[in-house]
Amino acid sequence: MFSSVAQSRLLVKNILSTQTQKLLMGTSFPSKLVYSEHGVPSDVLRKENDNIREPKENQVLLKMLASPVNPIDINVIEGKYIFKPQLPTVAGSEGVGEVISVGPGVSDLKVGDHAVIMTMYSGTWRSHLTVPRNSVLKVPSELGLVEAATLAINPCTAYRMLKDCVNLKSGDTVVQNGSNSACGQNIIQLARVWGINTVNIIRTRPNVEEVKDFLTSLGATHVLTEEEFKSTDIFKSGEVAAAKLALDCVGGQSAAALLRNLQIGSTLVVYGGMSKQPVSIPVSALIFKDIHVCGFRIAKWMEENNRNEHWQKMLDELISLMVNKELKGSVHKIIDSDNYKEALNNTITEKGMVGKKFILSFNK
Amino acid sequence: MFSSVAQSRLLVKNILSTQTQKLLMGTSFPSKLVYSEHGVPSDVLRKENDNIREPKENQVLLKMLASPVNPIDINVIEGKYIFKPQLPTVAGSEGVGEVISVGPGVSDLKVGDHAVIMTMYSGTWRSHLTVPRNSVLKVPSELGLVEAATLAINPCTAYRMLKDCVNLKSGDTVVQNGSNSACGQNIIQLARVWGINTVNIIRTRPNVEEVKDFLTSLGATHVLTEEEFKSTDIFKSGEVAAAKLALDCVGGQSAAALLRNLQIGSTLVVYGGMSKQPVSIPVSALIFKDIHVCGFRIAKWMEENNRNEHWQKMLDELISLMVNKELKGSVHKIIDSDNYKEALNNTITEKGMVGKKFILSFNK
Repeated sequence: MFSSVAQSRLLVKNILSTQTQKLLMGTSFPSKLVYSEHGVPSDVLRKENDNIREPKENQVLLKMLASPVNPIDINVIEGKYIFKPQLPTVAGSEGVGEVISVGPGVSDLKVGDHAVIMTMYSGTWRSHLTVPRNSVLKVPSELGLVEAATLAINPCTAYRMLKDCVNLKSGDTVVQNGSNSACGQNIIQLARVWGINTVNIIRTRPNVEEVKDFLTSLGATHVLTEEEFKSTDIFKSGEVAAAKLALDCVGGQSAAALLRNLQIGSTLVVYGGMSKQPVSIPVSALIFKDIHVCGFRIAKWMEENNRNEHWQKMLDELISLMVNKELKGSVHKIIDSDNYKEALNNTITEKGMVGKKFILSFNK
Repeated sequence: MFSSVAQSRLLVKNILSTQTQKLLMGTSFPSKLVYSEHGVPSDVLRKENDNIREPKENQVLLKMLASPVNPIDINVIEGKYIFKPQLPTVAGSEGVGEVISVGPGVSDLKVGDHAVIMTMYSGTWRSHLTVPRNSVLKVPSELGLVEAATLAINPCTAYRMLKDCVNLKSGDTVVQNGSNSACGQNIIQLARVWGINTVNIIRTRPNVEEVKDFLTSLGATHVLTEEEFKSTDIFKSGEVAAAKLALDCVGGQSAAALLRNLQIGSTLVVYGGMSKQPVSIPVSALIFKDIHVCGFRIAKWMEENNRNEHWQKMLDELISLMVNKELKGSVHKIIDSDNYKEALNNTITEKGMVGKKFILSFNK
């Protein structure tokens, strides 16, 4: 909670309006997770006190409610990602906040509204964030906080890959690897809603039946280990049609295995490379099976479609499905921001039942 | 030349019209290269006497003038190709012949016309061939025999890959490997005609300067060995723009190397796999450079576009360029059909200056 000393310091630094001061009462002391050099995240990241910046014209000030830790955030901090922020910077690319102040010119967001950060790399791992109005999406307050916090990356990635890469109809089949990942869970659920069969590949593990049950409960048509997929007869028997779309977040041999049961003329979309191995494509798959291979990156799609009709339609649809409990946020664990290292150290290596999403909370 | 004994045997078997008998006078005794089982081509192929079949309705009888030996023919005989003919069969997929008889209903082809076989796997390694009218294209007699005989596969492959895969404009760059192959030579020449830069990669070899000079004489913008391509500064210096299209007939590491100097959003088209290695694509090339990878096979294109406006436009354009000497047939050697094993044994392994095309001649 704010102490009056801290508050007065903020007042001196930021000349906050009386209204904003009042709204800040009862929130945590402003803090942020910053880094000044690339490296191992738990080494280079530090929690610091923050100054709150009063929103200027067309800006909003949010009290962050939930800030997910994504693999991409880890890669950015490590300096291994294509996006290289100017340092020092606040980490984090996703999150949901509550509006506590709006700047001049903002008429369609009011204090108390929930808003999701839609501009990647906004630095969401902080208690308070001032951003342009156009960087956020107002979401209904009945939308679960986890769903809201993780809306911008995984559900949108799943949605676009199912909608844009091939023309999928009800009854068609999609095959994916890394099916227990956060994105994989979204793919399973959206496909179920749209009547699309999913054949979901997972690595074998001690609790493999538990994973299968969980993914089946989300709507997976079939869940197979990599070994089971090699010899499955669900395609030959006609139980499901050969896949028109394969979604790969692993690369290497796992990507190549996906080609096994694809229809002629189908598409392999690569959206991740967890194995850190290149995708190996037999020449015959390209020439004789007419397989197309391409990549997908939601940040690029968002840049190209920011706030256009496709963007709006997608978000309306996703939020509606989430509010109606047809699309659940992925398995997660909420971590107090003081314990941020637990999230950093486990996001990439997490070997739990399914890919668990860590969500930082800065405001108790 | 026909002996009267042989001729009378043919008459008994085929009841040839007097006109056809007359036209056959002065041609070689009918022969064909057949095989009854898959295997090493020089082991399984045998030369046999043939019977001539009088053309029926909408058919034409050709005296073959030139029948190329393509790598694909070798693969089909070996049984390693996707197309599996019913055995026994006559080998060969390409060729040009002279019309010596037309069946009822054929009004747009006459005796003496030159006609190119456009339907793959028609069995062109023979002295005489009866085919449906719609399987051949009438070509001007001033079109060189080598150009005519090799028209249907390599020039068409080169044409379509340059036209259909990305939107190439004058000044754009295409990069290819296997640049000294028959198709590679066509790519260089067509690109030159259309104002497109080509960066041509070849394997290093003793006579590398000779190859470079030859490909440059065809219109290659740059010719580089694989090693030179790795460190070239022609892209950095702005001498040529980064490539929008990469054409790969090798696969493996050679395909991966092509990705090095591609523009964001460009396309890698795989149309061969001479290295017999899969194409290895870094995940980052797909996700961050937005590289698309696909295959190309001219037989599929021909099936889908047989005799439509695109087919006609392409062939008109190619023939016109060939007649005007702007597009030359690839380096070749004409082989008497009695010596067919020389062609079979050297087509895949030929290590000459450039990929030499062997062309069988059945009619001396």
